[in-house]
Amino acid sequence: MTSTPAPLTAVDPARLTEVLDGRWAHVRRDAREQLDDPKYAPVYGESMAEARARVTRLAADLAATGRVALGFPAAYGGSDDNGGSVVSVEMLAHADLSLMVKAGVQWGLFGGAVQALGTQSHHDRFLPDIISFALPGCFAMTETGHGSDVQQLRTTCTYDPATETFDLHTPHEAARKDYIGNAAQDGRLAVVFAQLVTQGEGRGVHAFLVPIRDAQGRPAPGVTIGDDGPKAGLLGVDNGRLSFDHVAVPRDMLLDRYGQVAADGSYTSSIENETRRFFTMLGTLVRGRVSVGGSASSATKVALEIAVRYGDVRRQFGAPGEDREVVVNDYLVHQRKLLPALARTYAYSFAQEELLCTLHDVQGAPDVDERAQRELESRAAGLKAVQTWHATATIQACREACGGAGYLAENRLPALKADTDVFTTFEGDNTVLLQLVAKGLLTGYRDAFGSLDGWGRAAFVAEQVRETVLERTAARSLVQRLVDAVPGRDEEVAVTDRGWQLRLFEDREKHVLEGAIRRLRGRAAGAGQVRRQFDVFNDVQDHVLKTATAHIDRVVLEAFVAGIDRTTDPAARALLARVCDLYALTTIEADKGWFLEHGRLTPTRAKAVTGAVNDLLRELRPHMRTLVDAFAVPESWLNCAVLREEPARQEAMAAHDASLRAAGRGAETGTDDPTATDLQLAPAQ
Amino acid sequence: MTSTPAPLTAVDPARLTEVLDGRWAHVRRDAREQLDDPKYAPVYGESMAEARARVTRLAADLAATGRVALGFPAAYGGSDDNGGSVVSVEMLAHADLSLMVKAGVQWGLFGGAVQALGTQSHHDRFLPDIISFALPGCFAMTETGHGSDVQQLRTTCTYDPATETFDLHTPHEAARKDYIGNAAQDGRLAVVFAQLVTQGEGRGVHAFLVPIRDAQGRPAPGVTIGDDGPKAGLLGVDNGRLSFDHVAVPRDMLLDRYGQVAADGSYTSSIENETRRFFTMLGTLVRGRVSVGGSASSATKVALEIAVRYGDVRRQFGAPGEDREVVVNDYLVHQRKLLPALARTYAYSFAQEELLCTLHDVQGAPDVDERAQRELESRAAGLKAVQTWHATATIQACREACGGAGYLAENRLPALKADTDVFTTFEGDNTVLLQLVAKGLLTGYRDAFGSLDGWGRAAFVAEQVRETVLERTAARSLVQRLVDAVPGRDEEVAVTDRGWQLRLFEDREKHVLEGAIRRLRGRAAGAGQVRRQFDVFNDVQDHVLKTATAHIDRVVLEAFVAGIDRTTDPAARALLARVCDLYALTTIEADKGWFLEHGRLTPTRAKAVTGAVNDLLRELRPHMRTLVDAFAVPESWLNCAVLREEPARQEAMAAHDASLRAAGRGAETGTDDPTATDLQLAPAQ
Repeated sequence: MTSTPAPLTAVDPARLTEVLDGRWAHVRRDAREQLDDPKYAPVYGESMAEARARVTRLAADLAATGRVALGFPAAYGGSDDNGGSVVSVEMLAHADLSLMVKAGVQWGLFGGAVQALGTQSHHDRFLPDIISFALPGCFAMTETGHGSDVQQLRTTCTYDPATETFDLHTPHEAARKDYIGNAAQDGRLAVVFAQLVTQGEGRGVHAFLVPIRDAQGRPAPGVTIGDDGPKAGLLGVDNGRLSFDHVAVPRDMLLDRYGQVAADGSYTSSIENETRRFFTMLGTLVRGRVSVGGSASSATKVALEIAVRYGDVRRQFGAPGEDREVVVNDYLVHQRKLLPALARTYAYSFAQEELLCTLHDVQGAPDVDERAQRELESRAAGLKAVQTWHATATIQACREACGGAGYLAENRLPALKADTDVFTTFEGDNTVLLQLVAKGLLTGYRDAFGSLDGWGRAAFVAEQVRETVLERTAARSLVQRLVDAVPGRDEEVAVTDRGWQLRLFEDREKHVLEGAIRRLRGRAAGAGQVRRQFDVFNDVQDHVLKTATAHIDRVVLEAFVAGIDRTTDPAARALLARVCDLYALTTIEADKGWFLEHGRLTPTRAKAVTGAVNDLLRELRPHMRTLVDAFAVPESWLNCAVLREEPARQEAMAAHDASLRAAGRGAETGTDDPTATDLQLAPAQ
Repeated sequence: MTSTPAPLTAVDPARLTEVLDGRWAHVRRDAREQLDDPKYAPVYGESMAEARARVTRLAADLAATGRVALGFPAAYGGSDDNGGSVVSVEMLAHADLSLMVKAGVQWGLFGGAVQALGTQSHHDRFLPDIISFALPGCFAMTETGHGSDVQQLRTTCTYDPATETFDLHTPHEAARKDYIGNAAQDGRLAVVFAQLVTQGEGRGVHAFLVPIRDAQGRPAPGVTIGDDGPKAGLLGVDNGRLSFDHVAVPRDMLLDRYGQVAADGSYTSSIENETRRFFTMLGTLVRGRVSVGGSASSATKVALEIAVRYGDVRRQFGAPGEDREVVVNDYLVHQRKLLPALARTYAYSFAQEELLCTLHDVQGAPDVDERAQRELESRAAGLKAVQTWHATATIQACREACGGAGYLAENRLPALKADTDVFTTFEGDNTVLLQLVAKGLLTGYRDAFGSLDGWGRAAFVAEQVRETVLERTAARSLVQRLVDAVPGRDEEVAVTDRGWQLRLFEDREKHVLEGAIRRLRGRAAGAGQVRRQFDVFNDVQDHVLKTATAHIDRVVLEAFVAGIDRTTDPAARALLARVCDLYALTTIEADKGWFLEHGRLTPTRAKAVTGAVNDLLRELRPHMRTLVDAFAVPESWLNCAVLREEPARQEAMAAHDASLRAAGRGAETGTDDPTATDLQLAPAQ
């Protein structure tokens, strides 16, 4: 029942870095080498004005390096490298998150929208200046009253054939554009999302290019610009508000790739259905969501590096018989705070790498594959949600793991926390994103099995479900082989058996999905009660969300398995296998209630999972430092006082203590440790 | 199996406020009335220098109101009201947390230490100026290298009978005093904790009064003052660092209530044992810990008020057949975010009230009751830990529940989060505090049953355990009656049966404690292996911590039961009973894995718990606003832009939408809701 893998040996962090770096290793290495400059490190204690000025300067410097063009067409000096462009944003997130967001706004959202929603003439006219940062711009989608529900934006843009212009208007304060990066200070042009009305008919949300400031920084006529003022973090990003009072927008400023308005006001589109058109347009912008998820993980890695390295030198409380106090990383509960988070961070890295590949391949394909596009969006939504929540929780844990030092700005953690906090709700509120994932699964199920009464009638149905609904990840055949190799009876299999873990994750996903469907149908039928349709769905909303998280957990585990499979160095491979065990088993442990409730784990086996987790913590303890070193964050970007100072401090204290002991004046450290208890000395009776 | 209590009726929030206000209602009412002034509201976007200057000014204003003297002796203008002094700090935490901490440092920690550890001459000489804020001071305990483990501080204070002075010295940087409030800017006198050495012998940690600045703000000779600089929050508190280079401290500046040094250097103390003396001295300072826990809950209440009130007007996503979009508080998952947190906040309020009473009575008693003192410290440690973690999690959830608005400083949540963040590690790291609680339980067990082989041999043993180890709370006899009234078989009892809930909490506590003891003994005996003593305890550290949380959960539930019992208004009582159900059942749900693993819940019953939670959310939804209104936070202290602006914004949008519909241009909101799914319309098959 217990696993007996070979003991782990020392691993060269560089071997792990190679695996983590993945397909865009060259982009990551380039960033580490070329941007390894203290000017990219975060600065502490600035005023909002200072931070904004510095980050604007840095954005221009960054543009001058040419690195921001990666994702743009070669014709404009870019590399048509969609995946690489996201990776370069992720790399910035190791350093300064304000700069990462500023870059994401300028080249990802603003430039990306012009590229994806505009046509040749827009590209020729604007992309060069966007890339060079000569033309800072905004992505003006969110309104004060509508964030996640973009389809319901209230800003209108009404075409008048007499003047051949659109009339852009903010009808009330809830329709004001809000939280818009680059709006409060730098932006000169904005991509404004508004309800297009022409010939008296609404055509849904479209994007328009609207000048908001002249070169002297004066607001354009009819444009009111507000400042969102100080925020929890991201002080270097000038978020603001835009209102439009009947602003005239020339006809050629409609970004018209997916919908065109002729001079007479007649509307054409290659996509007939308004909703489909809307989601196609939004779909082209998925890169932003992928960047946010990846950047959240970059920040998480920095936090873990700080906490792990600090925990390796910081000592607190003595132990009986020891001269020096105990290094805090040696405490089981400290390991419990850091190591499972570290394992999950590895897991998300592999899942993000897979997502980047999918993004790159889907968006780079000559033909649009709608199904692949939908899957990409769902995966991007799900991984953005879990990575950003993981960042919030982990950075918090790292802050606490560093005690008072973690609260000082000079030790980086406060900024990491405050800057990434908004990631859980921008680029899509996480809860809404999980619903999107769940809806995809439910719809996939309905499409495939709408006419079958229930799930699992025959073996081939189950197989088909796997094929069509629960799509496999890159490791498809490998995963299947591992699952098939598991003997029938659980109790005969070690909890560290990968096939057993995979099967358990898959089984939970299937069961939760099936249950959600059954409950939705049952409630819709509802014993003849008249129920609001809203209530039918709302009553099972928690169950529906669980469908999404169970799905993502499985996708992530399979990506981890694929990542291990790509690892060639044997020692690194063995270490990653243990880290994967820790991810899988702490995920199971966290949802133990469900597994027990549904007979998927016996009480004995549930306890074995917890026992195995504690064993893994002990086993991985000596490798904590290796695991964070593998993130390969340049030292200049860390800018953390306590990492620079604490090792020497501890050595000075040890030397002083030793001199006191030599003079007969020191005591051993463990005598009055309030964490200890005499009970440990009492014999078992 | 399902409960059928009478439906809830509308409740006057004032009836709930009366119950929550408790024994110090007069102090709370006074603060609400007298400090209901915009100058006490938080200010956004200040520089650190501006924040420090403003908070220093406010502290002086506060002193001028006379309210800060509550806890000091009547001889110095105080009221000898220990409980009231903590309550007045808690009230400040509704308004500005920097001011709360500044006040806590000056009058709680600094003034409190002079009062508790000093003697008459110190009181006469210093208390009047401390109370008036003419003498700002520091509580210099924590060192860069030692926070939670105060007994191991490295600063030394060595007596020299020749000069009749102490030599205060910082031997190395790890011994530097750090994170000290009032040190960077205002403090003139500091209570410095250092290892007392006299006649060549260490006497353990003692407190000394040391001038650190003159009236012109120049550092005293030999004193080096550093600035901790910008922090995650609490910008108005001037935290700093103090180092001493052989500073001469006159003999009468030893705070000598518990240990005296005669002119010739001979040492006397009424408490022989050094460790006992140390813990007695620390014990007198428990008020600080109680203030931090209570203040965390005050901040949590403000966050919940903001999120609940915003969620009651903010709308997002349409529903089929509805004209207006859905108010976000109507979503089940939104309720899941806010209502259990609200219920837990109520639970902690009642537990904190009980703790305040204990504090007041124990510290006001003519004789020292060591056992009562130990219990008070354990309770204070445990409630500080859970309240501060609850604050961190809940304020974060409230921030996310408000979306982008929650990230703007003008909406208060960023400051609430950043300011309270440090609470989880200051005044004792939460994890260390939980170990303290656990150690108390383990020691209590050993003292009572060290000679018995195992637990539960006979019925009277179990009863004795209840009496001696698992001390009951205020509601002792009531709780016993409720527990006794539960029929034997669980499945016959509704999960909302209070006696069943109480029994389950108590049973878990007992079982976890017993298990921890068994594992500790088993490991100490350890099959003949030679194990480091450290490992014996460390291997079960997670289990030991669970002992503490299970204990606190039970204490809190019993306090809630007592609170309901004190409620006379029938409607308020019924509402509180439902809120208590929600606290109890979400606590059980969160630890479902344990209850199932240990056969305390069947799978069927575990599912019933989740079902009951969802029923409670629906039932409590209409009362969310009442529940936050009952916190009675003056509107002037909230200072939240979105609460002022959002209702009118939503009305303007609704009016505009209605006019569009009247003109035939509006659509119903629910057509393309990405959160909905067509599945809800499919018939069950």
